[in-house]
Amino acid sequence: MSGDRGCEPVVRAAEIAVSNNRALRVVLLGRRTALEAFLSAGHDRIEIQDAPDVVTMEERPSHALRHGQQSSMARALSLVRSGGADACVSAGNTGALMALGRNTLQTWPGIERPAIIKRIPFHDGHCYVLDLGANVDASAEHLVQFALMGRLMAQAVDGIQEPRVALLNVGQEAVKGNEQVRLAGHMLQTREQSGYIGYIEGSDLFRGVADVVVCDGFVGNVALKTGEGVAELIGDLIRRAFADSWYSRFVAALAAPVLRRIKRRLDPARHNGASFIGLRGVVIKSHGNADVTGLVAAIEQAAREVEHELPRRLGDLLEQVEF
Amino acid sequence: MSGDRGCEPVVRAAEIAVSNNRALRVVLLGRRTALEAFLSAGHDRIEIQDAPDVVTMEERPSHALRHGQQSSMARALSLVRSGGADACVSAGNTGALMALGRNTLQTWPGIERPAIIKRIPFHDGHCYVLDLGANVDASAEHLVQFALMGRLMAQAVDGIQEPRVALLNVGQEAVKGNEQVRLAGHMLQTREQSGYIGYIEGSDLFRGVADVVVCDGFVGNVALKTGEGVAELIGDLIRRAFADSWYSRFVAALAAPVLRRIKRRLDPARHNGASFIGLRGVVIKSHGNADVTGLVAAIEQAAREVEHELPRRLGDLLEQVEF
Repeated sequence: MSGDRGCEPVVRAAEIAVSNNRALRVVLLGRRTALEAFLSAGHDRIEIQDAPDVVTMEERPSHALRHGQQSSMARALSLVRSGGADACVSAGNTGALMALGRNTLQTWPGIERPAIIKRIPFHDGHCYVLDLGANVDASAEHLVQFALMGRLMAQAVDGIQEPRVALLNVGQEAVKGNEQVRLAGHMLQTREQSGYIGYIEGSDLFRGVADVVVCDGFVGNVALKTGEGVAELIGDLIRRAFADSWYSRFVAALAAPVLRRIKRRLDPARHNGASFIGLRGVVIKSHGNADVTGLVAAIEQAAREVEHELPRRLGDLLEQVEF
Repeated sequence: MSGDRGCEPVVRAAEIAVSNNRALRVVLLGRRTALEAFLSAGHDRIEIQDAPDVVTMEERPSHALRHGQQSSMARALSLVRSGGADACVSAGNTGALMALGRNTLQTWPGIERPAIIKRIPFHDGHCYVLDLGANVDASAEHLVQFALMGRLMAQAVDGIQEPRVALLNVGQEAVKGNEQVRLAGHMLQTREQSGYIGYIEGSDLFRGVADVVVCDGFVGNVALKTGEGVAELIGDLIRRAFADSWYSRFVAALAAPVLRRIKRRLDPARHNGASFIGLRGVVIKSHGNADVTGLVAAIEQAAREVEHELPRRLGDLLEQVEF
């Protein structure tokens, strides 16, 4: 209910997702009349459950915790806790989703705070980056927990035996960084089987040097959004360059299939959907401004994590880990 | 002497810069024999001064302070202090340049720590972003000082009467961010003539919504380098897409002038050169890995700041500011 584009694209995305995946069932939580208005007839794997309230984008997490129990967001999380659903997908207020998610589903032992993790694609691979904004003041201990969770994600979902784990820093030399990052680096270095390979810089993110990249949520959020901004800027630059003269427009017409392929690769919607890792259940945060394609990707990400039994495997593995 | 590519591109860049700008004189500081080996004859506006030591990239700033006084970096900064040069350009160790710069040139009253500021271009404008890595743990007070310095930079160099100043944050809502950023926002809001317009996110950096964007050096450094990484990734993607099939190679041949223009616009070397703002002299930090084009851009940035009498005007304006 609380994404930037309202509930219509969410209903459309649910319709597409269930028709793409015959094993998928979707429960839409929100104002029944609003949701029913957009839902086409004949979807026997889409169900609507009424939730009277909506958590707004401006709402403080603490307010959502106290007053948001009848909201679509809280109801969706409760459904996961009760076993009525395997995963919750939301395009709403990130802070509220985090607070309600912790409150409703709880974290695994040893994990103080969940983190937002996302698979970042590049031309011949991908890496997981966390935290992307759940924690804006992560301590060294939190960073170590993020590292362990990211490593388990890469193992469970991608089957990588020994994921390479790096800390995002302002330089590769040991003297670089703030106190939290340096201390986390030291703690990871002395820990067995952490997969820790050292510091990397922002420019290394897409070079395939690490499978898991760990940072504070403030840093990760700003870095990811800056990257999106650069991609948008370059898309704009390419469009302008190919519309510049009669010759460039002529070439653009010939290059249309190539340009379409580039555009498709750059479309952030295809990679929409970040996970709250550390919770005892699958919770996927979609970009607030996601379109139908983006919301389908977020639902598919949820299905993938359920299929790989991510929360249970994370719980099992964390039981064996010493903090 | 201590850039990643050694001193040859520095000598070449000096030669190009003096031939582009007839008012420019360059003093090269470093090992005389190494520099002389690369310098062509007949450059009467390029002078070599011998400096026996080099600050290495791995060196701690504190070590450079104690033992680096005979280094090319320290000698260049001393030359600025004594009036023998108007500006210092270095592609060396950022932390050492910052420490030696503070020690040699001092900061203006009211400025506790210099910041690294860079002009970030986008298609129909640019903005200044600071700090990009001089301070990895900036307090709210430091962020406010950065805001004032950035504002003065935009006024002095670009002649913008009322620059719009924003804080880089993880969201635009007042509740977002860590404590330092929220406190700095409050301080800027209550300060007169700060030009403060509120929070912006990483994705807004290139949208022309602010003339000056303020952040902690850790965040700024990671964001900028991530942006560079994305640009590199997309450049690679475009190259691959146009080399993919006989048809795309055919189109690429026709599109060569358009693609060259795009490539030129994306070349980070053209925008190389960040300033240490807050010092009583012009100090420009070039990317350590800069090529000749990049080093020329850094020298030109130094010349521009000298021309606009940036340090003096900054000092004058800071005298009138209450902290």
